[in-house]
Amino acid sequence: MSCLSAVAVASSASSVLANGSPTPVAAVVAKKGASAARIADKIAQCEREGKLFFSFEYFPPKTDTGVSNLYERVERMAAYEPLFCDMTWGAGGSTSDLTLELVGNIQQFLGLDVMMHLTCTNMPAGKVVMGLEGAKARGCRNILALRGDPPAGKEWSKCDDGFEHATDLVRFIREKFGDYFSIGVAGYPEGHPSGYLDGKLTLEQEMAFLKDKVDAGADFIITQMFYDVENFLQWVSSCRAAGINVPILPGILPIQNYGGFKRMTGFCKTMIPPAVEARMEELKDDEAAVKEYGITLGVEMCKRMIASKLVLGLHFYTLNLEKSVLSIVERLHLVPMTEAIRALPWRPSTASEKRRGTEDVRPIFWSNRPKSYIKRTSEWDNFPNGRWGVSESPAFGDISHHHLAGSGGVTPELKQAQLQMWGEPRSVADVEEVFVRFLEGNIKRLPWTESDVLSPETGTIQGPLKWLNKHGVLTINSQPRVNGAPSSDKCFGWGDKHGFVYQKAYLEFFASEKIVDALFAHASAFPSLSMYAARADLSAPIRSNVSDTRSSRANAVTWGVFPDAELVQPTVVDPTAFKAWREEAFDIWTQVWASCTPDSSPARQVLQQIHDTYYLINIVDNDYVAGDIFRIFTSIFSEL
Amino acid sequence: MSCLSAVAVASSASSVLANGSPTPVAAVVAKKGASAARIADKIAQCEREGKLFFSFEYFPPKTDTGVSNLYERVERMAAYEPLFCDMTWGAGGSTSDLTLELVGNIQQFLGLDVMMHLTCTNMPAGKVVMGLEGAKARGCRNILALRGDPPAGKEWSKCDDGFEHATDLVRFIREKFGDYFSIGVAGYPEGHPSGYLDGKLTLEQEMAFLKDKVDAGADFIITQMFYDVENFLQWVSSCRAAGINVPILPGILPIQNYGGFKRMTGFCKTMIPPAVEARMEELKDDEAAVKEYGITLGVEMCKRMIASKLVLGLHFYTLNLEKSVLSIVERLHLVPMTEAIRALPWRPSTASEKRRGTEDVRPIFWSNRPKSYIKRTSEWDNFPNGRWGVSESPAFGDISHHHLAGSGGVTPELKQAQLQMWGEPRSVADVEEVFVRFLEGNIKRLPWTESDVLSPETGTIQGPLKWLNKHGVLTINSQPRVNGAPSSDKCFGWGDKHGFVYQKAYLEFFASEKIVDALFAHASAFPSLSMYAARADLSAPIRSNVSDTRSSRANAVTWGVFPDAELVQPTVVDPTAFKAWREEAFDIWTQVWASCTPDSSPARQVLQQIHDTYYLINIVDNDYVAGDIFRIFTSIFSEL
Repeated sequence: MSCLSAVAVASSASSVLANGSPTPVAAVVAKKGASAARIADKIAQCEREGKLFFSFEYFPPKTDTGVSNLYERVERMAAYEPLFCDMTWGAGGSTSDLTLELVGNIQQFLGLDVMMHLTCTNMPAGKVVMGLEGAKARGCRNILALRGDPPAGKEWSKCDDGFEHATDLVRFIREKFGDYFSIGVAGYPEGHPSGYLDGKLTLEQEMAFLKDKVDAGADFIITQMFYDVENFLQWVSSCRAAGINVPILPGILPIQNYGGFKRMTGFCKTMIPPAVEARMEELKDDEAAVKEYGITLGVEMCKRMIASKLVLGLHFYTLNLEKSVLSIVERLHLVPMTEAIRALPWRPSTASEKRRGTEDVRPIFWSNRPKSYIKRTSEWDNFPNGRWGVSESPAFGDISHHHLAGSGGVTPELKQAQLQMWGEPRSVADVEEVFVRFLEGNIKRLPWTESDVLSPETGTIQGPLKWLNKHGVLTINSQPRVNGAPSSDKCFGWGDKHGFVYQKAYLEFFASEKIVDALFAHASAFPSLSMYAARADLSAPIRSNVSDTRSSRANAVTWGVFPDAELVQPTVVDPTAFKAWREEAFDIWTQVWASCTPDSSPARQVLQQIHDTYYLINIVDNDYVAGDIFRIFTSIFSEL
Repeated sequence: MSCLSAVAVASSASSVLANGSPTPVAAVVAKKGASAARIADKIAQCEREGKLFFSFEYFPPKTDTGVSNLYERVERMAAYEPLFCDMTWGAGGSTSDLTLELVGNIQQFLGLDVMMHLTCTNMPAGKVVMGLEGAKARGCRNILALRGDPPAGKEWSKCDDGFEHATDLVRFIREKFGDYFSIGVAGYPEGHPSGYLDGKLTLEQEMAFLKDKVDAGADFIITQMFYDVENFLQWVSSCRAAGINVPILPGILPIQNYGGFKRMTGFCKTMIPPAVEARMEELKDDEAAVKEYGITLGVEMCKRMIASKLVLGLHFYTLNLEKSVLSIVERLHLVPMTEAIRALPWRPSTASEKRRGTEDVRPIFWSNRPKSYIKRTSEWDNFPNGRWGVSESPAFGDISHHHLAGSGGVTPELKQAQLQMWGEPRSVADVEEVFVRFLEGNIKRLPWTESDVLSPETGTIQGPLKWLNKHGVLTINSQPRVNGAPSSDKCFGWGDKHGFVYQKAYLEFFASEKIVDALFAHASAFPSLSMYAARADLSAPIRSNVSDTRSSRANAVTWGVFPDAELVQPTVVDPTAFKAWREEAFDIWTQVWASCTPDSSPARQVLQQIHDTYYLINIVDNDYVAGDIFRIFTSIFSEL
């Protein structure tokens, strides 16, 4: 909360550089369909379903690289299905802009519901309205209303035309925005830290303040961090006795290291149970042991609170770090790690339902570039409404090689990092080598992939994919065939329980004209394959072995069958969308890869040559029951 | 044509009573999607695809029973996929009404494109317009424009404000309706029969008349019947030489019996090749041999014409009879009898596309009562557009126990026939016996089935179904589970080639409360089953084991996966539609079955009691991979 965010921001520079642990759960995404939701409603639903939830708090990093890293971290952590995440408020001009930008992008591109913090510090009513309107415009429907820390080095005082108490802010939001926002407020189980107010308040006075905030319209309470669980539980009972009946979420800050722990608890005057104090002194020189103890302690604290039945969910102060928090969540078994919990094979944006309806189908082409897809379709009035074929194929927006960093864009550091990954190829063979090394896990990402997590299903066809790339078939997207895997399958599963999921095998790659000619020459011997091949030159016709009557149709390549439901077919190969994708895909050779190599270097020439002469090809094997999409290449390679 | 229709109508009373041959191809229906089409366009498509077509001509029967029989015959023959059928014009007031009614019902309910004949005889322009408007209102887009026979016993003369020649009629239709109708005209390979005109015309004169008709706007020519194929082929060449370039369909009347053959060829002055004449004299006392010869001769004639490459299709004068014509079509291998050729599991109505869009999903409840379904949805502005769930469930129209006979309705004869089928049950056991005998093939249809053809897939679960009915589970609808049968499968297949079709097992039945209680008591041990049970009493709630969040969803129970296409899910169990269906299904106990039994008979009491106390239950087994929908009954029957 107020105290916390100050500390958190102070530690941001180091925290974002700390090494996260990319667990292999990138595929494990949203269980529920996507739509910006009010946290109060989501908590109520969890309560009805008896489901314990958790949430993650972040703060705006100080550097562009930090921002870029945070997006990736949030995306990985989103796979654990927190109920929401929240972003602290940077009261300074550019920091508050960054808060809004982070809130909007996480809501829209990462498919998480976001709560934006808002403080009274240095915030006249006009600025508050701008913050709220900014949140609303970005699809965010949740505000944590705080008084905030005093300006650095000063006593707290309200600014001109500003608010004195969080209560005033809550009331203002309700007056101006009605029920649009779900509003949270802060609770202090150990009392308001002295120094903020003149002397300590009595428990009764504190309760009265808190009740005022709730009566003014707050939907739930998130507490200041603490380590004394028994004190917290007693405080919750006091709240209930005082007639405060909204959900109370305990704020948990896992201990990450000795120094930070001492600074923070000292600054916030946090009560430390003697056993914790003793153990920390014992371990203080062993960094790894401290970290592990932080996790164990967090798990114990949570277990005790869960057992008390006084909490509906747990709120974690992540300090923009991922490992400790995720370990606690895992050890509490709050995430079913052995079963798929994806609602769809891809993660829908939460920001769009109102304007564009429910999104339930996407072209496969962008499956490694979901953010680009969301961006390029953001102006659509409607998704193709479940059946791709029925709606006219909407126009795709401009290609943008965004990095979600907004203010930062493609920084020189980013270009440098990319150059390091992909190198300066001096020949086509060097380029092939990059693709092979990517499949071997030796390169984090290709220019065509937005995230550095290789989808687990790619692993199942890694051997054949490497073989293709070594022969000049430069794969950028693929999926194996699946003939009715359980929907709970950890690798391929998605959707409701007790269903079955299916995939047609898919391959997408760049290749030379020689290879493409050979493919089409052999196509008739492989009648279950459907191929489309296009060059960068937009005036060159798209080549296909699919008959004219069929070639305008979308081909469903991923679908699922579930109890008591219609079939769902969330991924298609859509020949019309392919035209938009092809531009983007070719563009990446020059605008992304070549542009991080030195001007007029040999690498630029090689990449430009591939851009100009190669084809982009996609192949679907319609025989998902017994087909082998790789077999055609055996014939081809033996001839070339 | 003109000559023919007179003969045909004269023989109608006997012809509709002749015994047809219900071949087991009821499931083999429309390959193409449904939409009223112009024959000229369909012929052009066949020509492009190099596909030989055929068509069937019928005339309006004289009795209600005849009409009722004709509908069933047309429906069976529709399974052979004629390009169109045509209906002769009855110039008298009530007969022309019947023509319109038949045209409309066949177009709407039987899913065939119809061509309506229209003659000049006794038809002032106003009546012609009414006929054309009537056809248009019924979704018919094809007219055969004829001069028509002279009024009985009189010389031909045009009526006041009428038309002298077919040419005038063609011109009039084009003037008034533009290109809305595709127009056919008659051709006479052996010359206009004398007696119609004063003396014979020269071939040149005949050609000039025919060319006038085509120049006035006719799209194709159907010829008078003939047996001299060489003469026909020569005549076609003459037509081409005279600049008549539209398709010419030879009219073929298979010889059915000696007497009819003599009458007809005498009346029409048809040329009989000496070999045919000789053979007929030889066989004339052997009725079966004549029939078989008629078929053989028809096949030979057709083969010769096909070999000549001068014809694109064959037109059959059926005389409202089915066996000879279908035998010829079969022996010519014009119908692929070993593969499914259905586009969907059910036959779409051809009359609706313009107003309601493409129909591609139906609730399973009406699968044995498709005409009732089409009727009850005829006021819908839109079908639920592919995805049942997206649209609000439209209101179903009134229940009507139609018999398509229109003018006739439920006649005393029909009631008598029904009573004979279903008897007067004196107990529930008697009712069970009726259901069992239906499954054994000893009763043609149940009150809940519109057609007397048991679907071939029911055969695969006949044993278990009989077992259920013997235990008081009165089944009215069912399908076995299918886990990916080839789309060409003769029993289960439908849709494009090289696809796979699936079904969830389905059972729908009436049963006593005791059985229903037992089912729900055992439901938890069979988690893959979803059940809905309702009573006739509309105020009694519907019982279900499906959770609330799921019970408003449509459950796809038939679907298919095809190359280069989206999935198709044409049959659903839709809980909302079930409410409309339940009323209809219960109503049938009293309005259809009981109403054909004598007033205040014991049968009425038994049927009323079942109506009042039984449940209508539907069960889906969501485990289409390995489920056994019958297993739950083993547990139940052992307890009862």
